[in-house]
Amino acid sequence: MSKVITPREQDYSKWYNDLVKEADLADHSAVKGCMVIKPGGYAIWENMQKVLDRMFKETGHVNAYFPIFIPKSLFEAEEKNAEGFAKECAVVTHYRLKSSPTEKGKLIVDPDAKLEEELIVRPTSEAIIWNTYKGWIQSYRDLPILVNQWANVVRWEMRTRLFLRTAEFLWQEGHTAHATREEAIEETTKMLEVYADFVENYMAVPVTKGIKTANERFAGADETYCIEALMQDGKALQAGTSHFLGQNFAKAFDVKFADKTGKLDYVWATSWGVSTRLMGALIMSHSDNNGLVVPPKLAATQVVIVPIYKGEEGLKTITEAVKPLIQRLRDKQILVKLDDRDTQRPGFKFAEHELKGVPVRIGIGERDLANGTIEVARRDELTKEVIALADAETYIEQLLIAIQDNLLNRARERQKRLTTEVDTFEEFKKVLDEKTGFIYAHWDGTPETEEKIKQETKATIRCIPLHNKQEAGVCVYSGKPSQQRVLFARAY
Amino acid sequence: MSKVITPREQDYSKWYNDLVKEADLADHSAVKGCMVIKPGGYAIWENMQKVLDRMFKETGHVNAYFPIFIPKSLFEAEEKNAEGFAKECAVVTHYRLKSSPTEKGKLIVDPDAKLEEELIVRPTSEAIIWNTYKGWIQSYRDLPILVNQWANVVRWEMRTRLFLRTAEFLWQEGHTAHATREEAIEETTKMLEVYADFVENYMAVPVTKGIKTANERFAGADETYCIEALMQDGKALQAGTSHFLGQNFAKAFDVKFADKTGKLDYVWATSWGVSTRLMGALIMSHSDNNGLVVPPKLAATQVVIVPIYKGEEGLKTITEAVKPLIQRLRDKQILVKLDDRDTQRPGFKFAEHELKGVPVRIGIGERDLANGTIEVARRDELTKEVIALADAETYIEQLLIAIQDNLLNRARERQKRLTTEVDTFEEFKKVLDEKTGFIYAHWDGTPETEEKIKQETKATIRCIPLHNKQEAGVCVYSGKPSQQRVLFARAY
Repeated sequence: MSKVITPREQDYSKWYNDLVKEADLADHSAVKGCMVIKPGGYAIWENMQKVLDRMFKETGHVNAYFPIFIPKSLFEAEEKNAEGFAKECAVVTHYRLKSSPTEKGKLIVDPDAKLEEELIVRPTSEAIIWNTYKGWIQSYRDLPILVNQWANVVRWEMRTRLFLRTAEFLWQEGHTAHATREEAIEETTKMLEVYADFVENYMAVPVTKGIKTANERFAGADETYCIEALMQDGKALQAGTSHFLGQNFAKAFDVKFADKTGKLDYVWATSWGVSTRLMGALIMSHSDNNGLVVPPKLAATQVVIVPIYKGEEGLKTITEAVKPLIQRLRDKQILVKLDDRDTQRPGFKFAEHELKGVPVRIGIGERDLANGTIEVARRDELTKEVIALADAETYIEQLLIAIQDNLLNRARERQKRLTTEVDTFEEFKKVLDEKTGFIYAHWDGTPETEEKIKQETKATIRCIPLHNKQEAGVCVYSGKPSQQRVLFARAY
Repeated sequence: MSKVITPREQDYSKWYNDLVKEADLADHSAVKGCMVIKPGGYAIWENMQKVLDRMFKETGHVNAYFPIFIPKSLFEAEEKNAEGFAKECAVVTHYRLKSSPTEKGKLIVDPDAKLEEELIVRPTSEAIIWNTYKGWIQSYRDLPILVNQWANVVRWEMRTRLFLRTAEFLWQEGHTAHATREEAIEETTKMLEVYADFVENYMAVPVTKGIKTANERFAGADETYCIEALMQDGKALQAGTSHFLGQNFAKAFDVKFADKTGKLDYVWATSWGVSTRLMGALIMSHSDNNGLVVPPKLAATQVVIVPIYKGEEGLKTITEAVKPLIQRLRDKQILVKLDDRDTQRPGFKFAEHELKGVPVRIGIGERDLANGTIEVARRDELTKEVIALADAETYIEQLLIAIQDNLLNRARERQKRLTTEVDTFEEFKKVLDEKTGFIYAHWDGTPETEEKIKQETKATIRCIPLHNKQEAGVCVYSGKPSQQRVLFARAY
């Protein structure tokens, strides 16, 4: 067990924070609420970006870039959206500093450099993008527009947690424009599927797909689709959202197109995004008291080789012996690294790679060399095996696949174990407090009941699952009739 | 000649602006001085990023991410740097908007949400990064730190031009920390070489490597290395800079390390960056009155196939006929696209692909089909050839290499033609006004003379070239003795 990380059982929240810092993932910065994404964390985020970007392009999307600032007047144009984000945004009011006339070396805001119109640092880009699309769209020939943006956004959060909730975060935001309602809805669900595919098959995190209730919907959307994941502590985490925006933004920014007959209509819109929050989901799904566990498909280093040697000659001999293996692993596109630092001892290296979540660790010493063997340790199960050095690449290739599968299966089993159907509010509260997890319960469909349950229990409706089983029942809270169970949980 | 673009000869500046907008590269936005990078432009930027990112990683660097905001007090810490950037920065003073009490639907800045300390939107990240490095560095074991960041930055520019000078731009900034002065200088020059390699061998733009004079140096650097390129209109463009920062930032943020003997010393630093400005350099190096010309190595689409057909059946026949060629081109990693839109005629498509700079265009009609031929047009020289469809992939592969080489050679020849040695100030001014281009002239080495020449001619010293020939002479302006010629030009 790592000495630098507080055990999960002792303090889950501290475990998470310790792990994020010690495993070289992220840290707090001098700017309140903003994080520094450290090289170890950024490398995983880059791998996520690469896979997602490929998936977006395979589904016909292209990237573009829009300004970080949104003039206040554009922000006001879509009423609900403005209301939803106005409470938590960074406002640029001036464009110059000047030397303080009283304190040497100090700078003050130059009062003569006040902006005529304040600029908002984007919390999301619908406003600036739809204002731009107005110039891009005249006729059906200009549609669809399938654009994605990789960017930083800022939301002034009061209580922040590394990756999960920070004032600035990195994300991608897709913004598409369509000629018909049907096509826009198809796009919304298509991107939800892309997200679910990514989160399950690369992050090894199972998700439940569904639709948000009106209370939880994105401000400015007609319908918000989402994927919900379950963390180790039994709390839910929204891993991605895909919004059907109807004609709301087209109306706010007057974006019309002429169809083949010349008839004018407002354009239909979607937007969809995932963020560095996914890093939090990844960490909290698989990691343990020894540190981070990374699914092989997203690991920056999949295999690390630690030589156990005496003296310079010893290192040289082992390095020569593992060179062919390294080459054969690289030929299989496996990301392998030889840790030949002479400033640290093997024990230190073992602990460090465990802490940082390298999926497979190979140890090789002089006795192994004589026997033609290596010791292979898998990070997910913390087990070791001695195998033959010759042909080790085939074993390791299979092992990486097995680890990826094992992580997903473990998370699936946990989600199954922590999913409960309840029929009474007593049971609801008891499960929430004692067992935690996902709760399926009947709900009368009203925002009022949803709000009361939230106030009394801190549980929210995570989603109304897609293809939800229809069954008659009564709302656990109001006793009124209900046609289906919805998914409740306490959430990040 | 494209009807949508003003000819270069008529108005070079208008030609550039027209081209950038019409070729789908970028456009102005609703935010003064900020641009929208359109999909066509972003695709080229992405390709630049991919190559540069690989080069950075091959030289041992890793990526990370630091906050977009810099607290004013950190900004003040490095005096010269603060002075250099304070005049042109976006200042966040508030963190909330609220509904206007007098105008319905309007938002006002909430006076109760004033920040205790103003935040500067980063114009460059030395301050926030060195404040972070303080926590990362204790001993020589923690060095070197070789970190790069891909990010957006903001400098409040008054006169902006798409890609060349915008309030917000995208860039990468490397920030490295070293134990010795020598190692930091080695890093500075290594990254200059990486930039020169990229700009010449991918962008096909020849550069002159050199050192900036004290006047033109980065605020906070001990030495600024740069690469300078020459545009079609004879003006210079600084394409990248690599700064040796000495111990300036380590001293400003008190970053010390213990060496092997335990002795404490300040850490040595470098920073280096290139930005979306490179897009401007690429456009202005190769393009013509028909539109953009993109070097094949950076083109999002290298080959476009335009079928010339009658009716649905005709399209189907041609599509089937070119399918094997498309596959064979893809097998060679060539980026090929079939333009089978039925909403536009071939003539329209030809002009559009020319405007957007696709290096190779293939036309294929019914007669070609019968003859087993295709028509191949190269964008750089606007010439066409009819070749056999069978084995066309070998020809096209060679053609792409030839186009890449031709673009670099053309630009090299232009640079050679537009480089002049002058010995008198009369000659200096005459060449500057009539011939334009790079001017090599003797200079007495003083900032005063440099400043006077700038005021009288608008020409600046672009750099003191690396490995510069030493030769005795007299300064063209002051007549004082000089040991070498330096590179002058009017610049973007």
